[in-house]
Amino acid sequence: MAEGANAVEAALAAGTVHELFVTARAAEQHADLVDAARAAGVAVSPITDRAADGLSETVTPQGIVAVCALLDRPLEEAVTPGARLVVVLVDVADPGNAGTVIRVADAAGADAVVLAGDTVDPHNGKCVRAAAGSLFHLPITRVRDVPAALAACSAAGLRTFAAHGYAEAELDRVDLTAPTAWVFGNEAHGLPADVLERTDLAVRIPLYGKAESLNLATAAAVCVYTSAMAAHR
Amino acid sequence: MAEGANAVEAALAAGTVHELFVTARAAEQHADLVDAARAAGVAVSPITDRAADGLSETVTPQGIVAVCALLDRPLEEAVTPGARLVVVLVDVADPGNAGTVIRVADAAGADAVVLAGDTVDPHNGKCVRAAAGSLFHLPITRVRDVPAALAACSAAGLRTFAAHGYAEAELDRVDLTAPTAWVFGNEAHGLPADVLERTDLAVRIPLYGKAESLNLATAAAVCVYTSAMAAHR
Repeated sequence: MAEGANAVEAALAAGTVHELFVTARAAEQHADLVDAARAAGVAVSPITDRAADGLSETVTPQGIVAVCALLDRPLEEAVTPGARLVVVLVDVADPGNAGTVIRVADAAGADAVVLAGDTVDPHNGKCVRAAAGSLFHLPITRVRDVPAALAACSAAGLRTFAAHGYAEAELDRVDLTAPTAWVFGNEAHGLPADVLERTDLAVRIPLYGKAESLNLATAAAVCVYTSAMAAHR
Repeated sequence: MAEGANAVEAALAAGTVHELFVTARAAEQHADLVDAARAAGVAVSPITDRAADGLSETVTPQGIVAVCALLDRPLEEAVTPGARLVVVLVDVADPGNAGTVIRVADAAGADAVVLAGDTVDPHNGKCVRAAAGSLFHLPITRVRDVPAALAACSAAGLRTFAAHGYAEAELDRVDLTAPTAWVFGNEAHGLPADVLERTDLAVRIPLYGKAESLNLATAAAVCVYTSAMAAHR
């Protein structure tokens, strides 16, 4: 379910909408989206405000909700030779974090996001909302087998960099111009030792103040954007 | 109120704790913190698990809560000549965002955070938790008058850079080695025109993919860290 005008617009543009539900007020306010859906052959069904409340997971529903195809792509379709930037999440537990990182990856021009191990389901409503449409902008793949995810990145010609608070290599000293897959771990536990061992390099964000760490989403934003800007320089 | 072992530890280190409340279990688990509080002349009061639940704003209280001095510093004490990196939040509404940005500012070695205009109260529990102790690591000042906040930054020798989605200047093309105050606006509305006009330069984060923007906390992380790493290079 993609909820709200922005998410519905992105889902329609991606051609993944099965059916669109709109309240009378939302249909008036977002006539362009309703027209676009009809033009694409998508069934548009009117609903009451009360039904919109029932469908919505938010406190203030916008009255426009799209039922979409599942987002999963196979690993080999998502991570392909020629990729320059891939983000791998390992065992990330919070759907808001996963969605925020998917939005960052999209903004940074990443080629794919790999949700590996026990990472949350990207179809979770909190993840969809935090991703703000980005779920429909780049390939998302779910892979239980973390070593297989890393092997696919290596096979595609990407170096695998693990974000790790105790790494020796510092982000501002590492060459980030070559194709890179960034690997981030669980919010509380970070990356397991066996995953760290399978990556090419562990990298830490330099801490210049007294904070002991950054949270997952801001750490990912710093790493992924530092890479993207270095590659575009 | 600083809740949980990490926040209490940071508050004790900063010497701002008035009184410490601990359950029997937490006193055992965090004996070092209880000893440190006593050594600093802080009153330590035992509480029941039920009282801890009552004091806590979280679902799983840790049983250790410190009542602290208010964090506000006067603007002229927080933003001083010689500062190299300052973060200014204008009308930021979400306490979790404010706390996350304070944590990022601390990690990046910022000299101060200025909460300007209608920005949320940093004493809000969600802000305290998101800041993860960083509220006690660097000076925080609250200033209603946004132009006064910007003038103080300029007077301290900082260039004021406004993060703005439609700015001409791109983050990766701007010289970030000189002392800088980063200015961020409200989550939904960004920075008002009159604030933009009063800053030295509006800067946008380059968007390499299809996302239209980043959220406030990740945008701030990218801008502030890009500055910090450039200044330390």
